[in-house]
Amino acid sequence: MTKAVILLSGGMDSCVTAAIARDQGYELCFLHLTYGQLTSERERRAFDAITDHWGVRERFVVATDHLSRIGGSSLTDSSLTVTDADLEADGIPSSYVPFRNANILSMAVSWAEVLGAEAVFIGAVEEDSSGYPDCRPAFYDAFNRVIELGTRPETNIVIRTPIIKMSKTQIIREGLRLDAPLHLTWSCYRAEDKACGTCDSCALRLRAFEELGEKDPIPYHERPSYLKK
Amino acid sequence: MTKAVILLSGGMDSCVTAAIARDQGYELCFLHLTYGQLTSERERRAFDAITDHWGVRERFVVATDHLSRIGGSSLTDSSLTVTDADLEADGIPSSYVPFRNANILSMAVSWAEVLGAEAVFIGAVEEDSSGYPDCRPAFYDAFNRVIELGTRPETNIVIRTPIIKMSKTQIIREGLRLDAPLHLTWSCYRAEDKACGTCDSCALRLRAFEELGEKDPIPYHERPSYLKK
Repeated sequence: MTKAVILLSGGMDSCVTAAIARDQGYELCFLHLTYGQLTSERERRAFDAITDHWGVRERFVVATDHLSRIGGSSLTDSSLTVTDADLEADGIPSSYVPFRNANILSMAVSWAEVLGAEAVFIGAVEEDSSGYPDCRPAFYDAFNRVIELGTRPETNIVIRTPIIKMSKTQIIREGLRLDAPLHLTWSCYRAEDKACGTCDSCALRLRAFEELGEKDPIPYHERPSYLKK
Repeated sequence: MTKAVILLSGGMDSCVTAAIARDQGYELCFLHLTYGQLTSERERRAFDAITDHWGVRERFVVATDHLSRIGGSSLTDSSLTVTDADLEADGIPSSYVPFRNANILSMAVSWAEVLGAEAVFIGAVEEDSSGYPDCRPAFYDAFNRVIELGTRPETNIVIRTPIIKMSKTQIIREGLRLDAPLHLTWSCYRAEDKACGTCDSCALRLRAFEELGEKDPIPYHERPSYLKK
């Protein structure tokens, strides 16, 4: 079996991405990054639960504090407030961590080169990422060129972004079709016991489940008022 | 003054690179990475000494263990032996850390975006890097494209590699011309008290000083036998 490194945050997008890689026949190798995000412990628990669910043997957890020490994002800087979702707003949200995905992909490629893996899967989503510059297909195309030039000639590692063009609704539909353990995932940027229901990440998730007429299997503190059901 | 992030390992190449950035009028911001290399404490001391020498205020030290835990290099894996130099050999040496420079550049760009810096200087050298794939100009060109696509639209960060085409001899000549504190630098891959004199890095350095008819100001355990003087 060909190995693939999967960046598994513990959220829904990366869980569905892993289900797609698994469906394509790859041997899964899960990489999780704790970079000082405020909900890192909760995400780590979700990572462990999903890893155990699929019995994945190759797992690697990297703890790094440089992104939170560099600062600039409400996701890692507790002095900044995680704002309530405004799904109509343009621009880059306060939760943007500068150049985060390049940091994460670089780690994944280093590990992939040592494992002999041929793919790195990341659950980046262009539409729902609400303007993060490092979630667009052109960014990944450019990164693939860096990998081609910056690794040993005999390696053949390519970044895969199978859900990048999907809406959140399509992602959930795909997850349900592939029997991904969505009940074990965690998306909230704010809380660790029950999801807050009102941050960007919760709002996108809840709205998508509603559109599908499905119930999100994880518990919430509150459901945002703009959801009708 | 325009800020520039300088990747300062504590070695001679990065010290001369910093001297060039300083000469070009940039405000220096020094980034040092401890990634589990065997001589990390000695390199950190060199970093501190060079930083103090120039009175640099913006300094940032990142300690990360993921590259050593991923393994695959004699620089970070104490179970592998740092081989003696064979300056005529082709291929990628055992000291290669998979995709290391992409990891380091990603960190530097994240910091540069928060600082509002407009350049990231790295002392990569094509010729003397003896085959590391991530030390070639094409790799940096490709990385600049990733930065352009993966950072906020208003940022304008470019990787600079001012010594990439220089020989070690030219680098030392440039360092002497710009009064770079070469006596404070550390290059050896193996030892921490006196430089070993026989690893790749020591051999390249000693040969270059010899070619210039200058004496390397740092102490050595031994001088390799192929040096005549």
